[in-house]
Amino acid sequence: MTVIGVDVGGTKILARFVDPVTGAASGRVKKPTPKDGPASVLAAVADVVDELDPDRTADLVGIGVPGLVDGAGVVARCPNISGWDTPVDVPGELGPRLGRTVVVGNDVNCGALAEHRIGAGQGVDDLLVVFVGTGVGGGLILDGSLRAGDRGIAGEIGHLTVVADGRPCGCGGDGHLEAYAGRAGIEREARARAAAGERNALVDLAGDATIKSRHIDKALEAGDAVAEELIDDAAMALAIGIGNLATVLDLERVVLGGGVVDKLGQPFVDQIAQSAHVGGFGIEMCDLRLGQRLDDAGVVGAGILAADRR
Amino acid sequence: MTVIGVDVGGTKILARFVDPVTGAASGRVKKPTPKDGPASVLAAVADVVDELDPDRTADLVGIGVPGLVDGAGVVARCPNISGWDTPVDVPGELGPRLGRTVVVGNDVNCGALAEHRIGAGQGVDDLLVVFVGTGVGGGLILDGSLRAGDRGIAGEIGHLTVVADGRPCGCGGDGHLEAYAGRAGIEREARARAAAGERNALVDLAGDATIKSRHIDKALEAGDAVAEELIDDAAMALAIGIGNLATVLDLERVVLGGGVVDKLGQPFVDQIAQSAHVGGFGIEMCDLRLGQRLDDAGVVGAGILAADRR
Repeated sequence: MTVIGVDVGGTKILARFVDPVTGAASGRVKKPTPKDGPASVLAAVADVVDELDPDRTADLVGIGVPGLVDGAGVVARCPNISGWDTPVDVPGELGPRLGRTVVVGNDVNCGALAEHRIGAGQGVDDLLVVFVGTGVGGGLILDGSLRAGDRGIAGEIGHLTVVADGRPCGCGGDGHLEAYAGRAGIEREARARAAAGERNALVDLAGDATIKSRHIDKALEAGDAVAEELIDDAAMALAIGIGNLATVLDLERVVLGGGVVDKLGQPFVDQIAQSAHVGGFGIEMCDLRLGQRLDDAGVVGAGILAADRR
Repeated sequence: MTVIGVDVGGTKILARFVDPVTGAASGRVKKPTPKDGPASVLAAVADVVDELDPDRTADLVGIGVPGLVDGAGVVARCPNISGWDTPVDVPGELGPRLGRTVVVGNDVNCGALAEHRIGAGQGVDDLLVVFVGTGVGGGLILDGSLRAGDRGIAGEIGHLTVVADGRPCGCGGDGHLEAYAGRAGIEREARARAAAGERNALVDLAGDATIKSRHIDKALEAGDAVAEELIDDAAMALAIGIGNLATVLDLERVVLGGGVVDKLGQPFVDQIAQSAHVGGFGIEMCDLRLGQRLDDAGVVGAGILAADRR
């Protein structure tokens, strides 16, 4: 069976044919993401699908979107796509227009599914995938299937409280994992330290521009004390969140990916694993692995999701 | 269908007929739990089952034990039953002896299943049940089924880290939920405070005897500052653990039971619910309820587990 996978990003929409078993992808149609609301975005998705598959050889389409997707495929909100501020029943709107069955999921969950089936999560039924980038997202595979939740919140590991009344999170909460381990959280803290007179290489390297993962990596290489402290905090926060979930869900494996992890690599994963005394019965009870940085993971995962859900 | 439910406790073994749909129980055979190891315990279980059902009208037996039960029903350890210190394949040993199919689960998980099917958890598919007693245990129902985990660790909410490097837990970990919310953890802290010169009603009321839930209740009624502080800590720790799981698993409802909750009642549940700012996206996203203190919940839940697993 071949399905169509679509990844709707903040800047571009990409569609490919996907074999949901092998993860092999072929064909490629890309369009910029319209900025004037969901109707235009859905029209663009319909365009890339029809352009990829004008002869309707595939009757199943999986779509990953950077938003909150409920159990029925309704995209409740999509803050990373300009103008998408009302709930949209994507399968209901796009399915009839495309003459194909449409399945919609969160893009991070799609990426987690891809790691499960063709990446570092292969061979286990109970898996957590954690992506550490600007924020921290995740996907939970339980008994071999993605757990997205009725409201689409499942797997939102970035918003676990790891420190009561701790650092403010971008979501308005306090002490969430993302505030410690996400790049934006690290940047907020580094700039606050600099503003308070604690000069550090993170701010020095980035200047007024965004502090990127490569700046973090360089600051660590240079032995910058603030960078080391913030990465220690990030590793500890990840160890608490991951260890807690590994315990309460009895997980076999946890796969780590995302921009920060990709840049800092295995030493960062090892540092998290060494924080073994925190987080439930200890992170050592599960197999912590570096993700495989799969090509077009969002598209492939969207195709896998569609095939799973059919 | 009628099944046999057996609850193996630290002091007694109880067997009843159970209708796994209605939870109705009938018949009752009870024996003291032997203290000389698992072989004697299994023999006693066989005795109560055969005595309850000499005519073999029920061919399915569910057994709840106070230990770690893996996915195959092997009881890895059972620290609350004297002499049970090696893994025992209970279905493998008892099934042929009883001429019945034997399913084994953790007793706390059985209690959670009972709350799900006939108690305060009815009507939802995704449920966490938390029992706050001497320790803190729990059971997770996901998509309508108990999640026990391959190693039987799933649902062990008591050992979630809620405070990094926090109070020592009985398990050897630090900052676990159980250290803050379990009766034994509260007692350890109250006695440490008293030893350090901070006199408190918890220790005054209990004297050299165990601090019971009724002592906690009385100390709170008397407005004792230490008791209030420790119960505030307990509520906060529960709010973090429960809120985190409600977020990452997208839970619909959380039911609270156990000796401490039964004694402190709805005001304690309300206090946890009011700590809404901690724990993931906030505990207000799920419906927090007082459990129903079901009669023979362990026996009924063991019967339900057996029927579910067949």
